[in-house]
Amino acid sequence: MHRLVREVIAPAFDMHELSDSAVLDLPSGGRLALTTDSYVVSPLFFPGGNIGDLAVCGTVNDLAVMGARPLHLTAGFILEEGFPLDFLQKILLAMADAARRAGVRIVAGDTKVVDRGKCDGMFINTAGVGHVPSGIRLGAEQIQPGDRILVSGPLGTHGIAVMAERNGLSFHPPIISDTAALNGLVESLLAVSSGGIRMMRDPTRGGLVTTLKEIAEESNRRLEIRETQVPVLPGVQGACELLGLDPMHVANEGVLTAIVSPEDSRDVLEAMKQHPLGKNAAVIGEVRDEDDQKVVLRTPLGAARMLDMLTGDQLPRIC
Amino acid sequence: MHRLVREVIAPAFDMHELSDSAVLDLPSGGRLALTTDSYVVSPLFFPGGNIGDLAVCGTVNDLAVMGARPLHLTAGFILEEGFPLDFLQKILLAMADAARRAGVRIVAGDTKVVDRGKCDGMFINTAGVGHVPSGIRLGAEQIQPGDRILVSGPLGTHGIAVMAERNGLSFHPPIISDTAALNGLVESLLAVSSGGIRMMRDPTRGGLVTTLKEIAEESNRRLEIRETQVPVLPGVQGACELLGLDPMHVANEGVLTAIVSPEDSRDVLEAMKQHPLGKNAAVIGEVRDEDDQKVVLRTPLGAARMLDMLTGDQLPRIC
Repeated sequence: MHRLVREVIAPAFDMHELSDSAVLDLPSGGRLALTTDSYVVSPLFFPGGNIGDLAVCGTVNDLAVMGARPLHLTAGFILEEGFPLDFLQKILLAMADAARRAGVRIVAGDTKVVDRGKCDGMFINTAGVGHVPSGIRLGAEQIQPGDRILVSGPLGTHGIAVMAERNGLSFHPPIISDTAALNGLVESLLAVSSGGIRMMRDPTRGGLVTTLKEIAEESNRRLEIRETQVPVLPGVQGACELLGLDPMHVANEGVLTAIVSPEDSRDVLEAMKQHPLGKNAAVIGEVRDEDDQKVVLRTPLGAARMLDMLTGDQLPRIC
Repeated sequence: MHRLVREVIAPAFDMHELSDSAVLDLPSGGRLALTTDSYVVSPLFFPGGNIGDLAVCGTVNDLAVMGARPLHLTAGFILEEGFPLDFLQKILLAMADAARRAGVRIVAGDTKVVDRGKCDGMFINTAGVGHVPSGIRLGAEQIQPGDRILVSGPLGTHGIAVMAERNGLSFHPPIISDTAALNGLVESLLAVSSGGIRMMRDPTRGGLVTTLKEIAEESNRRLEIRETQVPVLPGVQGACELLGLDPMHVANEGVLTAIVSPEDSRDVLEAMKQHPLGKNAAVIGEVRDEDDQKVVLRTPLGAARMLDMLTGDQLPRIC
């Protein structure tokens, strides 16, 4: 997928990468963040959410981690002929509820119906616009050696929840997707930092490792993670061991990672922990001097292991 | 489809209608137009275009007819596993070319792959933002009795071109989709009018009749059309007769209809005719005093026929 986007799709539009978000200057002044995501999660309903709130939260989060205030979403529906009306209504209500809670409005929409067998129930695209306050400058180019790497919550719960539902597995206690809008959390972090938040990302598809690897490449730095500091719920840890998965490769939908200056890291961590979505927040590592773009995991015994994006999709259709 | 959107989808978001476009005020000042459309056209390639340029032009046109200058698009791709790479590249090049010609940039994208048989080759969502210059006020509430109804080009060519390709029909001369970006045409119309352009629309799915019926409902007026004035290419007319279709119900992708004050209608018509996309432009009727929200067709013999949206989809997956 990464290769497809890098080698085929992005070059067609004269870009090195076709990121799912962009910040743009407007003719009328001000900066706008713009993002799009299509959702093809299977199954459509899973513990903790459905494709509807996922589609709203995912796009809100893409905007929020850019430092934008999410304002408006569009929703494009592709429905399979005969899709049950009560499923559709449940999904729409979940979208409306998620939008209300995130403080955004769904202002435009489009619906297409395709014949039976030509799509898998329902796909949703949400695009979003947000306003980037002046003074907000986030990006990999801000990253300095010594910066701390924070995560706001335990890893891998969304991916495991969807995968379990898809395969008819149940865990006790059940594993519930973390699907949530992160814009409130982001605002509280920006409020306590004194410019030390370098960048944020929400580690969805491919999990935390994929996101950190992208950050390492974009910043031309090494990121070093301490294994013991990485928060994972015991149930998710157990499920991952059972299934041969690494929770750091599994998708999240309500977690962000932030790269923060040493000076601001304590206040930002504290603000995370104060927020309902950040109770398990932790400093999990730091940015190193080396410019080898590697993500290195330190084990409790001091050994170092290189982490990389997976080739192939470990958990397809997770979002 | 109209009922589904009106009775299920829009109410979920506390709206009467979930239009595919919206105009928004920005915190930084200025007005922004926002739109989304998903494209599921089948087949993906048709005479005169493919799903790629269709997806760019369609969204550019949604913005343009709101009086917005289209600026930036996002593109969300859903691909079926095993989708041929050379098809993908052709489609992407068509998108890039259409964007360049329309003067917009594709700034963010997302790609999802679903397993074989779970989507029909490829679906594309494009969302777009445009800048609405101050002073532009378009909308059904501006419409007055006596206003003229203009169309910029001959009707039904896109729908017939796609339908012919889908069913292996060929016509001589071939019928070529009118897929084109209308923003240049719109700018030239706005430039010559002195505020008399009340509203514009691009009659896509459901054709001109569906669009006029929506305008009649929104403006609470009757619209009267003179059958002999409606431009239709002879080949499209012949194909429609053969197939039992009405060209006024067939989709267009490079035509706009404008409601224009009597004072401005001559200049706007002239500006249309000067533009490469408007050579067949015509005044086809006018807005009447009656508030019965009807669309009435006057035949050459003076008879009146009510026109209405079709129930059911005459030509599904045409865009």
